[in-house]
Amino acid sequence: MPNWLLPENIADVLPSEARKIEDLRRGILDNFRLYGYELVMPPMLEYLESLLTGAGQDTDLRTFKLIDQLSGRTLGLRADMTTQVARIDAHLLNRASVTRLCYAGSVLHTRPSGLHATREPLQIGAEIYGHAGLEADAEIQELALASLALAGFSQVRLDLCHVGVLRAIIATDAAAQKDQAELHILLRAKDVPGLRIITANYATVTRDALLALPNLYGDASVIARARQLLPQLPGIIAALDELDTLIRSANRAIVTIDLADLRGYQYESGAMFAIYVAGLPNAVARGGRYDHVGEAFGRARPATGFSMDLRELSRLLPIAERKRSIRAPWGKEPGLRAKIAELRKSGEVVIQSLPGHDNDQDEFDCDRVLVQDDGSGHWILKKLA
Amino acid sequence: MPNWLLPENIADVLPSEARKIEDLRRGILDNFRLYGYELVMPPMLEYLESLLTGAGQDTDLRTFKLIDQLSGRTLGLRADMTTQVARIDAHLLNRASVTRLCYAGSVLHTRPSGLHATREPLQIGAEIYGHAGLEADAEIQELALASLALAGFSQVRLDLCHVGVLRAIIATDAAAQKDQAELHILLRAKDVPGLRIITANYATVTRDALLALPNLYGDASVIARARQLLPQLPGIIAALDELDTLIRSANRAIVTIDLADLRGYQYESGAMFAIYVAGLPNAVARGGRYDHVGEAFGRARPATGFSMDLRELSRLLPIAERKRSIRAPWGKEPGLRAKIAELRKSGEVVIQSLPGHDNDQDEFDCDRVLVQDDGSGHWILKKLA
Repeated sequence: MPNWLLPENIADVLPSEARKIEDLRRGILDNFRLYGYELVMPPMLEYLESLLTGAGQDTDLRTFKLIDQLSGRTLGLRADMTTQVARIDAHLLNRASVTRLCYAGSVLHTRPSGLHATREPLQIGAEIYGHAGLEADAEIQELALASLALAGFSQVRLDLCHVGVLRAIIATDAAAQKDQAELHILLRAKDVPGLRIITANYATVTRDALLALPNLYGDASVIARARQLLPQLPGIIAALDELDTLIRSANRAIVTIDLADLRGYQYESGAMFAIYVAGLPNAVARGGRYDHVGEAFGRARPATGFSMDLRELSRLLPIAERKRSIRAPWGKEPGLRAKIAELRKSGEVVIQSLPGHDNDQDEFDCDRVLVQDDGSGHWILKKLA
Repeated sequence: MPNWLLPENIADVLPSEARKIEDLRRGILDNFRLYGYELVMPPMLEYLESLLTGAGQDTDLRTFKLIDQLSGRTLGLRADMTTQVARIDAHLLNRASVTRLCYAGSVLHTRPSGLHATREPLQIGAEIYGHAGLEADAEIQELALASLALAGFSQVRLDLCHVGVLRAIIATDAAAQKDQAELHILLRAKDVPGLRIITANYATVTRDALLALPNLYGDASVIARARQLLPQLPGIIAALDELDTLIRSANRAIVTIDLADLRGYQYESGAMFAIYVAGLPNAVARGGRYDHVGEAFGRARPATGFSMDLRELSRLLPIAERKRSIRAPWGKEPGLRAKIAELRKSGEVVIQSLPGHDNDQDEFDCDRVLVQDDGSGHWILKKLA
């Protein structure tokens, strides 16, 4: 096998795509900052127990493991950064007040999540710690929508769900509790025949409620339908009230509800959301509340946040235009050097041709050339055809 | 062991440091772009053979290995990005012309290079492929110096050496050839007693030349001394001529020479350099020529480049000032929302206080607050004491 081949679902990012990703990364991080989010950079590697704290089996299977020769302990390559940022909030910053944090970095997966999915997503996200109210969820959703608008996505849809609904339905049914993991999978797939089989021995009220969930999706009117179809349990009423408030908070955004959309990690604890853009069946952003994530680090703080994959987002955006640039000859003549330095200082890309080569770099479109004026000896810009 | 502890020589980067690193990263990448360098993003993981292509045993020992469950083959976590970028030049871009590439990303080491060194440097660098002349080396050195000036380092020193000198000295001496790896280590440490022992059985001319090298360091006059002290071999004359040219190219920079400074990877092939800043004994940037790095990927192209560790650079810089920001109350009132959006659009950080909390985020210094004017109902900025 030739040594320039890369592993499956692992790829280099070449210049035009890398530039798009870099611009997107900066734009989104700058926007996080305008909202008061502080940047943190957790490490690529941690002790496995720390990385998997509070995370489900899913994350465990997706995490690459290796041995630390300094300690002899097992390390994991991060497959997700949420737990890491929660650890930073809980232990390093350890503030009493509301803390807003953001991050951007590579995560690695042992297996791709789909046939064409990368095993090295570039995760970017933001989190609020220390506020249990829905205002934090509303801000996170606004920030996620604003980030996508800024990236150039116009037709976006905010899809809401709430883990409290399923929790309340199965809370009183021991059989259903036992099947919780499988119920998640069946509901996510809206697999009604599968749900009929698994719920056969459940209490009728549980069964009816679970079978109703896959149809409870659509626009904001789903909330009213859910109030009629689902049992009047306090947990369900509270969850639907929260969704109602979040719908009203999402001013001008297109909002849909999907009460069976339970994808994600197991540390989720309240309202969750996914954002879809035109032309892509999978969500481009996912987020929600996971108040218990810091518990295992000794400090349970209310937490809500979201994350996206910059590589996937970038793929959906048009190719950036090549940057108009200036070609300059090679030379150490002080006048030439000063002119080049001045042009670069003003933000112009100036590419000095190395002797014997005058090809341009592909990403740059040299539309001007620096030439020495015969009369004055000054270096001047000349347009190229 | 508590689960919030990190492995040795692995650390989180907290907000004030993360901001410094991010600003440094952007400034340096932007400067690379002004010189016409195109950004690429190679993956964190590759097949081990690809990563270690052309690299020495040193890199092998520093590379974390794991098994790819998709292919059953051994993967490596990159410990250095130079080989990866050479692979991209050779196989993905495959251009005939001069190619300038740059990169920034985490690399991971099984063992730290020193007691306090991180095992996760943030490597940033630039490379020129396809030009064998010294002009490419001069541009790379200028770019490295300009990047450090831009980062705020004023007292920098460019230290030059050339692998051709040692190569020429040992080329005709079979015993010295055999000891090449050990000679590198002894010369690097300027270990003259060690050199005396190992060279005891070498030819006198080889021995004298090797024992002269540890003293051939200092300002540009070292070149003249080397011409007198070292044998008149064509390889040595050519190497010293190249160093002479590079000293003259480095206009205004402080240049020193150290003919025994042979640190680095084994793919080096010509003039090499290191850059030192005041207050740090280790070089902050290292680079040079390694024309053979693409060979193993089927396409040997002349190559020269340099790299630095952003984490280390950042540590040397002063803490960034906290950003002056605006505190705003929570609320959905359209006038408030519009005012906040307008302020953020103009580049102001506006932090909405979540109900029950009005603490500021640590990285931001809220010196103004948004209040509603009693008379007009407009939202206006008020100075905070």
